[in-house]
Amino acid sequence: MEIRDPVHGSIHILKSEVPIIRHEFFQRLRNIKQLGFSEYVFPGATHTRFIHSIGVMNIASSAFDRLFKNLSNDKDILRLKETFKLACLLHDVGHAPLSHSTETVMPMLDELKIPDRYLSKKDKTKNRQATHEDYTIKSIVDSSFAEAFELVEKEFGVERKYIADLIVGSTDDINYFTHKGINYFPILSQLVSSELDCDRMDYLLRDSYFCGVSYGSFDLDWMLDNLEMCVTDNKAILGINERAVVTFDDFLLSRYHMFIMVYFHYRAVCLEQLLYRYFEKTPNEYRIPASIEEYVEHDDHFLMKVLKRSKSPYAEAIIKNQIPAKIFESFNESQEKTLTKIQDFLQSENIEFIRCSSTGRLSKYYVEEEIRSKYPMKVVRKHFGTDKKSYFDISEATDLFTKFSKSHAVNRLHCHFDDLSDLQKVEILKMSGAI
Amino acid sequence: MEIRDPVHGSIHILKSEVPIIRHEFFQRLRNIKQLGFSEYVFPGATHTRFIHSIGVMNIASSAFDRLFKNLSNDKDILRLKETFKLACLLHDVGHAPLSHSTETVMPMLDELKIPDRYLSKKDKTKNRQATHEDYTIKSIVDSSFAEAFELVEKEFGVERKYIADLIVGSTDDINYFTHKGINYFPILSQLVSSELDCDRMDYLLRDSYFCGVSYGSFDLDWMLDNLEMCVTDNKAILGINERAVVTFDDFLLSRYHMFIMVYFHYRAVCLEQLLYRYFEKTPNEYRIPASIEEYVEHDDHFLMKVLKRSKSPYAEAIIKNQIPAKIFESFNESQEKTLTKIQDFLQSENIEFIRCSSTGRLSKYYVEEEIRSKYPMKVVRKHFGTDKKSYFDISEATDLFTKFSKSHAVNRLHCHFDDLSDLQKVEILKMSGAI
Amino acid sequence: MEIRDPVHGSIHILKSEVPIIRHEFFQRLRNIKQLGFSEYVFPGATHTRFIHSIGVMNIASSAFDRLFKNLSNDKDILRLKETFKLACLLHDVGHAPLSHSTETVMPMLDELKIPDRYLSKKDKTKNRQATHEDYTIKSIVDSSFAEAFELVEKEFGVERKYIADLIVGSTDDINYFTHKGINYFPILSQLVSSELDCDRMDYLLRDSYFCGVSYGSFDLDWMLDNLEMCVTDNKAILGINERAVVTFDDFLLSRYHMFIMVYFHYRAVCLEQLLYRYFEKTPNEYRIPASIEEYVEHDDHFLMKVLKRSKSPYAEAIIKNQIPAKIFESFNESQEKTLTKIQDFLQSENIEFIRCSSTGRLSKYYVEEEIRSKYPMKVVRKHFGTDKKSYFDISEATDLFTKFSKSHAVNRLHCHFDDLSDLQKVEILKMSGAI
Amino acid sequence: MEIRDPVHGSIHILKSEVPIIRHEFFQRLRNIKQLGFSEYVFPGATHTRFIHSIGVMNIASSAFDRLFKNLSNDKDILRLKETFKLACLLHDVGHAPLSHSTETVMPMLDELKIPDRYLSKKDKTKNRQATHEDYTIKSIVDSSFAEAFELVEKEFGVERKYIADLIVGSTDDINYFTHKGINYFPILSQLVSSELDCDRMDYLLRDSYFCGVSYGSFDLDWMLDNLEMCVTDNKAILGINERAVVTFDDFLLSRYHMFIMVYFHYRAVCLEQLLYRYFEKTPNEYRIPASIEEYVEHDDHFLMKVLKRSKSPYAEAIIKNQIPAKIFESFNESQEKTLTKIQDFLQSENIEFIRCSSTGRLSKYYVEEEIRSKYPMKVVRKHFGTDKKSYFDISEATDLFTKFSKSHAVNRLHCHFDDLSDLQKVEILKMSGAI
Repeated sequence: MEIRDPVHGSIHILKSEVPIIRHEFFQRLRNIKQLGFSEYVFPGATHTRFIHSIGVMNIASSAFDRLFKNLSNDKDILRLKETFKLACLLHDVGHAPLSHSTETVMPMLDELKIPDRYLSKKDKTKNRQATHEDYTIKSIVDSSFAEAFELVEKEFGVERKYIADLIVGSTDDINYFTHKGINYFPILSQLVSSELDCDRMDYLLRDSYFCGVSYGSFDLDWMLDNLEMCVTDNKAILGINERAVVTFDDFLLSRYHMFIMVYFHYRAVCLEQLLYRYFEKTPNEYRIPASIEEYVEHDDHFLMKVLKRSKSPYAEAIIKNQIPAKIFESFNESQEKTLTKIQDFLQSENIEFIRCSSTGRLSKYYVEEEIRSKYPMKVVRKHFGTDKKSYFDISEATDLFTKFSKSHAVNRLHCHFDDLSDLQKVEILKMSGAI
Repeated sequence: MEIRDPVHGSIHILKSEVPIIRHEFFQRLRNIKQLGFSEYVFPGATHTRFIHSIGVMNIASSAFDRLFKNLSNDKDILRLKETFKLACLLHDVGHAPLSHSTETVMPMLDELKIPDRYLSKKDKTKNRQATHEDYTIKSIVDSSFAEAFELVEKEFGVERKYIADLIVGSTDDINYFTHKGINYFPILSQLVSSELDCDRMDYLLRDSYFCGVSYGSFDLDWMLDNLEMCVTDNKAILGINERAVVTFDDFLLSRYHMFIMVYFHYRAVCLEQLLYRYFEKTPNEYRIPASIEEYVEHDDHFLMKVLKRSKSPYAEAIIKNQIPAKIFESFNESQEKTLTKIQDFLQSENIEFIRCSSTGRLSKYYVEEEIRSKYPMKVVRKHFGTDKKSYFDISEATDLFTKFSKSHAVNRLHCHFDDLSDLQKVEILKMSGAI
Repeated sequence: MEIRDPVHGSIHILKSEVPIIRHEFFQRLRNIKQLGFSEYVFPGATHTRFIHSIGVMNIASSAFDRLFKNLSNDKDILRLKETFKLACLLHDVGHAPLSHSTETVMPMLDELKIPDRYLSKKDKTKNRQATHEDYTIKSIVDSSFAEAFELVEKEFGVERKYIADLIVGSTDDINYFTHKGINYFPILSQLVSSELDCDRMDYLLRDSYFCGVSYGSFDLDWMLDNLEMCVTDNKAILGINERAVVTFDDFLLSRYHMFIMVYFHYRAVCLEQLLYRYFEKTPNEYRIPASIEEYVEHDDHFLMKVLKRSKSPYAEAIIKNQIPAKIFESFNESQEKTLTKIQDFLQSENIEFIRCSSTGRLSKYYVEEEIRSKYPMKVVRKHFGTDKKSYFDISEATDLFTKFSKSHAVNRLHCHFDDLSDLQKVEILKMSGAI
Repeated sequence: MEIRDPVHGSIHILKSEVPIIRHEFFQRLRNIKQLGFSEYVFPGATHTRFIHSIGVMNIASSAFDRLFKNLSNDKDILRLKETFKLACLLHDVGHAPLSHSTETVMPMLDELKIPDRYLSKKDKTKNRQATHEDYTIKSIVDSSFAEAFELVEKEFGVERKYIADLIVGSTDDINYFTHKGINYFPILSQLVSSELDCDRMDYLLRDSYFCGVSYGSFDLDWMLDNLEMCVTDNKAILGINERAVVTFDDFLLSRYHMFIMVYFHYRAVCLEQLLYRYFEKTPNEYRIPASIEEYVEHDDHFLMKVLKRSKSPYAEAIIKNQIPAKIFESFNESQEKTLTKIQDFLQSENIEFIRCSSTGRLSKYYVEEEIRSKYPMKVVRKHFGTDKKSYFDISEATDLFTKFSKSHAVNRLHCHFDDLSDLQKVEILKMSGAI
């Protein structure tokens, strides 16, 4: 089967993968928009997690072929490839409706009854609220979704638990991922989720395409052509050729700029805040079910239906796409001080307001001059005159992490300005410098 | 206000137009997908009639500026421009949920209570089922939508009834459209709806962009640069410069190929047939309300919700995106004979089947060697050495209408093949030439 | 080695292919523009036959992989693939400078001393003027270019003579092309040169990209995904899946429209006519050498240098990009009659003029209701319910050849209008309808 | 006249501008490639300064219309617009063949005989080697090119000397640029040449398009929509709206990445070094003439012809596109130390080598914590609730200049490695870490 994708062209789906894509657990993603409320700002951005997930699998397939070029016909390798492709395809399968804010109405983790093997030590000892990733793992390892995997299990020997391991980022059985003595788990889990993973490579291009902006564009071809496998101590980790370091810089900055220009757009962020407040003020109107089989009904439409029926003013504002006026916004520290003053005034006057704070960070990988990652990415130098390759740390090849180590904060204050008294209005305009 | 559109770039919305776009009558289009069921085949095609309508207005604005270049600052002309832009923006505002099939559950025309002035002679004397165009007219001239037009009425002197006239394609008062003795109604109504209208110019590019195909691409820049105003008997009608005749041919063929390759895709067409059958078999589950104020609730989500709750097997098949197997399809006459035989067999055996017939026509403008249009399009020759322009008929400049005067028919038979007896299966496979 | 191509993205060149691309015979194509004089009309169209040739090889590689999917690791098949790729890479290597008009100053065929084996029966018995294809064959089979093939000969067992055979379209030794009893020469030579060959698939997309027009766009992905191998009588010929017939129609029409809108542009055509006239009037100023080793110097720059030094008014006009005024042009028969009258007048008055006649044809494949091709293309139907495929003729699947069987002619008259007498001017303007 | 540009679409050229574009001084740019030797690396990059210049004028026109929206029909303003458009069109008209390296064979400034008015104080007192900018000024103010300006002088009152002033960046007569008491020279000269000028806005998009890379892409639409005119002390200077600061950051980084990934490509840089060396070693083979009328002959072809005839090994290497092997390259300081060691070794062994050093800087605007510009760019905040705008410095809105204040250096060593002795080879490989 071919799927026509505006971003990657013709995508080939194997016969044995079709039942997974056709299954209602995956079809549910058709009704979960990739960018949630951003559609209200960028009306082209109606693309869904369905096509995004297929796009991620497509990049996964290309990346794998590039890295495992010389091993491509081995049976073990084909099993690994399929396991990896499915981890990429299914990384978002448990995503909640509309936006991450919906996670605040999720049940406690223990209610999901995820098999112990998939819980971290911490999670085993201490309960917490579930996240969409927990729903992803539950869907894959312990639900009626299992029936869709029959063909890939038969044809490739794929085991679902290892798909989950790649998504979680750790495994208790490296044998499944080991071929001729080399453990490929690190590199594959990096490509599922890390600074340079297939998810990000897809969504930057896709969100740019559907929003109609250029911030997210980067050189996918060159990036894929320059992925490298770095084997040390029989472990394979992800590297890039030295000549693609600037491509990687550009990739990181593309993401950073997408955050500020698209994902942090004030309308979308404020709508999300209204949703938070709706959940907070009327906690019983909408809850995410703990049952994975019921969860399949919960998509954007489901939640919008609930909001439409609600009498909450927050729900109504969302439905009508009417946000309170943006009375002040700050991009730098001195503006932030002004903002705090205005906020204090609003509080002292008992005026209801919404403060939207969006903080972008180039990378969570490198924080406070330290690399925070189990498997750090390597840079590969191919030496002139011989076949030798040297590996070194990405932080030696680019100082972008250092340059952008501080986060970038945007803060906004919203309130129903027209409803204020004239005195209040004048005071706010004075403080903001407008008069 | 700017709206970012992946197809046309930055689109500028006037302040006085904002209330129209923000009104719930127009916002409703956010939840009506441009291509209905085609999203199941081309998963990028989640674009809505909301952004399409804005795109049509944007093309309208460019086309108007090109044609009225020398008159652009006149007050009358600015009123005409705004009236025309709004006609383009609102041409789809009454569109029913999901697909044209929903029109079969619309009420009778008289129930809509459209003011007499907007009804054709025929419609005044004989009742019939309403269409989405009737809802469009009703929305514009006789509904609570009126409140959103205050600013354009004040700023430009726009009158809503003339917006409706441009959409309907006839007017009883040409004065509104007349400036310095020339009646501009014909050319403007042609650009709202004709062989070469702003609607088609937008949807071909847009559907191609979001589906990720190239069939609908044509040279919009060259087309717009070569629009001409042809004035005869004080009436302005639409023309194109001779040098853009091939661009026009390419435009017609683009649309034709989009029909066959995208709009007629067997899965989308079959889903639509299932919806027809659902409406037919359980006529009371879903009806379009005659009240225009209630209609605003009726979008894709509303109908999908109804389908989800339904126990009809047709509704269930749509929801599960499971169509009966396509057992035969015909593209030419000899194949069609085979198809008819198989169909006869299915009938004789009392096997339930669906026949999908899609008929594409290059143009309804030129049928049976006759031009069927009130205002035929002209071709303009600019003579060497003088300023003289000659007009002639488009049919003298291109014989494409003649070449493609016949329609192109695609027919398909679907049934639940797996449920048949072995004898029935064998018989069908034999007839189809498969064994 | 990767080559970055704006049309196809990253193109991978094998190490053994590098010497061929680096050789001066191939590097010469860097200075031969793909569209010759069209650059004067579409200033982006400075792309060369160098990058086009690499693009053709890239499409060839994808097409081959699609068609030989299940055979891909066989040594024989790898040899065939490389032979075929090189035929595509080198199909234009003998192209003359600037435009096809340069072929009029080529020597007689016998002067090239092409080995007998590569001459058709007709060519062996009767001498004629050489063409660029003769230079292509000579370059490949009998020149110093041979040194560059050492690596592909060693690694794949490629033989240069069979590269030439694929380009010529016939071979006296089918063994080289036969694997397990099936002769693949027909399908490969079709992909080198036929209605649907890699050359056209590349140049339509490329010329559109660099000119900045959309006429040549077609769905390359779908076309390649639907190529089929049709084996009858142990011969493999080219087919397409039934579901891509409209894609093929669109491809044919794309080419047709590119001819009329781009390749036939009056300025480019008139400049070419001026070059013809230059060659005709001053036959000794520029000759193409018969020696293939000298030929390597002959590129666009070489010829432009000659034109710059010339005192011929035709050369001067080309250099200054000044064409005589276009006084009349005809697109249909009645206009052509007028044109003939004006032409008669110019002749009777002894006014020098240039008549440019461009005739476009949808296809040379199907002329006067007859298929003119050694290996006709097939359409493949895959039957429901079984693995059976049926083949039928392309003319049964589409009637486009019939519809467009007539050619489309554009004629133009150019002269130095300003130099004419007033009486002559008036007469011409009268005849043309301008006054 | 329309010119079709793949980057900007249809570009409209006024009748009065046509003689300038058709003049041989401007047509010369058809044979000067935008990226010189980069074509050898990115074979699509054959685009010329001709189409680039037209693209710059097109952006200029849009930027002007945006900034002067409310003044657009005033005669003075139309004169300013045309003067500004022509400054943008002609900013590169004096560009030397092939690459900036050709400036080393230019004559001394005084030989050009540029009228005194156009020389800076420094240039009047001290002679120096001419640059391509001097040729640009000379072409516009004192050459036979003057004849082409007749129509724009008549229609708009444009004076050539003020075109030159905009290019030079200073004027001794602000009256020409003053309308209703406001001096527009600063903002217009900024748009001709500054951090955010029309030249850069065009070439980033264009070079990306023709190279087939994405590094140079930025959001042109949003940038233009957010240009602001900031009037202080009756002087208009360039500003951008606060909401486009990240777009500006992205624009700066796009240029930075284009430098490193495209303009600094080792092959192109090394070819340029070979050209330098050719000029240095055989100083009499090619000189740029001081006569502006002779200069018109000097384009890429002219210089390539000289190189072809030369017996210099450097010329030969360029013609054959054969550079000495790249034996080492450094991206960071520790690698640079190694490189210096290897270089010392080469020197001590008397081995001829080429060292290529490319240094990229985000901006010359902000060096060593100081803004170095006559007219610094402003950022504009539009206050909520009023019409008030505040201006502040760009350095308050973004710290990108600080982050990237250091330059990025890439160094490479090339030599004929194969000609070295085994001992020398081993020594180099050891030092480089390859063995």
